[in-house]
Amino acid sequence: MKKILTAALAMLVFLSLGAQEIRYFNAAELNVIGKAIPTAKDFTRIDTAAYKFNDKVIEEYACHSTGLAVLFATDSPIIKARWQTSQKNAEENFTAIAQKGLDLYIKKDGEWVFAGVGRPNMSKGPAYDQHEGTIVKSMAPGRKECLLYLPLFDSLDSLFIGVEEGSYVEPVENPFKYRIVVKGSSVTHGLAASRPGMSYAARFGRDNGFYTFNLGFSGKSKLQKEFAQYLADIEDVDAFIFDAFSNPSAEIIHEDFDTFVDIIRAAHPDVPLIFMQTERRESRNFDTWREDFEAKKQAAAEEEIRERMKTDKHIYFLPSDEFLGDEHIATSDGSHPTDLGFTYMLESISPKILKIFRKYGIR
Amino acid sequence: MKKILTAALAMLVFLSLGAQEIRYFNAAELNVIGKAIPTAKDFTRIDTAAYKFNDKVIEEYACHSTGLAVLFATDSPIIKARWQTSQKNAEENFTAIAQKGLDLYIKKDGEWVFAGVGRPNMSKGPAYDQHEGTIVKSMAPGRKECLLYLPLFDSLDSLFIGVEEGSYVEPVENPFKYRIVVKGSSVTHGLAASRPGMSYAARFGRDNGFYTFNLGFSGKSKLQKEFAQYLADIEDVDAFIFDAFSNPSAEIIHEDFDTFVDIIRAAHPDVPLIFMQTERRESRNFDTWREDFEAKKQAAAEEEIRERMKTDKHIYFLPSDEFLGDEHIATSDGSHPTDLGFTYMLESISPKILKIFRKYGIR
Repeated sequence: MKKILTAALAMLVFLSLGAQEIRYFNAAELNVIGKAIPTAKDFTRIDTAAYKFNDKVIEEYACHSTGLAVLFATDSPIIKARWQTSQKNAEENFTAIAQKGLDLYIKKDGEWVFAGVGRPNMSKGPAYDQHEGTIVKSMAPGRKECLLYLPLFDSLDSLFIGVEEGSYVEPVENPFKYRIVVKGSSVTHGLAASRPGMSYAARFGRDNGFYTFNLGFSGKSKLQKEFAQYLADIEDVDAFIFDAFSNPSAEIIHEDFDTFVDIIRAAHPDVPLIFMQTERRESRNFDTWREDFEAKKQAAAEEEIRERMKTDKHIYFLPSDEFLGDEHIATSDGSHPTDLGFTYMLESISPKILKIFRKYGIR
Repeated sequence: MKKILTAALAMLVFLSLGAQEIRYFNAAELNVIGKAIPTAKDFTRIDTAAYKFNDKVIEEYACHSTGLAVLFATDSPIIKARWQTSQKNAEENFTAIAQKGLDLYIKKDGEWVFAGVGRPNMSKGPAYDQHEGTIVKSMAPGRKECLLYLPLFDSLDSLFIGVEEGSYVEPVENPFKYRIVVKGSSVTHGLAASRPGMSYAARFGRDNGFYTFNLGFSGKSKLQKEFAQYLADIEDVDAFIFDAFSNPSAEIIHEDFDTFVDIIRAAHPDVPLIFMQTERRESRNFDTWREDFEAKKQAAAEEEIRERMKTDKHIYFLPSDEFLGDEHIATSDGSHPTDLGFTYMLESISPKILKIFRKYGIR
């Protein structure tokens, strides 16, 4: 009889472990960070009702959750997630985890340490916009402060965070300081990072404790007045970092650069504007047309910037020579830096930007 | 009249440029390299009619074109490709370019320099196993020696290389020396490289001029006798490099390691066997179950290797401490090194392997 009872008890323990009760919390009710200007929708970075771009792709990208993250704390040993994105397929040149997935960091000895990913559903079924998975499990007891980056290249319609029944989940205050706006092309958008938290903007912010806003728009960052107006409207900006010369042609750079800066300067007269030269794309290695097109872009950028720097002492220019290393191995497709490319890029720009920041008391 | 003629001529030139005539060549008739033992099918790395593994997934992976490449020369200014893979979806933790795409390098000043990628079709239509694209265009005149890596994580049913009508395409002799067999897990299979030519086995071979064979089997490299027998059957092997301890549990390592080595040693008594310790996975950061499981695997591997080294002076063991750097940023999902991870890994293993190789006259 005692044996049977022991066996039954063991079975009960086993069952309760196997069918662990999970309770889901709406992430929108925790602390969602990364919006330069508040938006009506929970996980949308720019409100397309308030800002019109006259371009369907830009408006789609404005609704991406790029650069957004959720801050929360929990004492659960397991963290799961259920989330919904659009139904569009992943692009071929970076991981679906980066595009449609989640990327969790937990505070450990004062550092944000990678904890796990939320893997998007890659099935061909009708529900491939519905994702569910375990991000991390079997954690030691105790409170964990969590930073969960949201999809880089998709809209996020809902997100629920699952924890063990009886555990708490509560918002955590934003620990990142200053307001650093990063505006640019696909490179800024996060192509071709391997995870949502691996874009250079996210890494620069996480590594240095700065609050960065990701305004990367793949292929669409062409010095438009509409973008300048949006940037002008952002309040309390401490610095702008621009990857502004990757998408426009040399002609557009010559035509529109001054107006773009004028609009921002009218609202932010003394804020440092740090412009990066566009990378030397690997697609130039053998393509003579691309070589010519890119060289002209780079020359136009340098010319316009140098001219503007003569009258604006808060404009800075960062060369891009080191952005992709020298072994031709740092992009996924000839244009888009992988995590290796972003590492080279950050090794080049971070000390230069931090030096500029110190002049403005940003540290 | 003259104006009209000039305009008509200009239009003709434009049309002929626009509708550039492309002629396709069957890549199977060029020089396909990377098969350790010849196979009946053009782009299959292991012949599953000759080698049985009693495991459907292993047999699927045996048919992948992992590590295979096509060597050819052309004087065409443009290189295109049409290829067919399986209909399976890409996995979420690395790029579809790496899994189902192509990766071209062209010889320049004695080095293989990245030239472009073949992007797989990501549409939802019925023909998503049919891929077509321009890899590089607008090249300067002259002969180009080309090294085209094939999909890392899919079967390749056919491949045609397109060049401008009137250009030649001819096979190029394999310039890679020695026969280095690399056997392992998903890490060896190429997860999570960004392009087919960015697996660590391909990079080690390309960077050092060695002929490497990629026998990575994601999740399935568990010291099986069937794999050992296949490795025993490979002729003229100069060295084996093993990522042998990533997939098996500690128990399997203790049980099967000696038999695995015995089978290989019976055929290759004096060939250096270089065993890498399995990486310290990032999924251990907070998961105590994973921490325990992985620590036991690593201890078992070290124990078995050290014991075997006492009686076999051609066995080597490489520690893995540096494989993923120390910032927890080198994997796409906690387990699989990105190009950044492979860079760290190669920085660690390459000098050690080259030093071992020199003892055997491999240089």
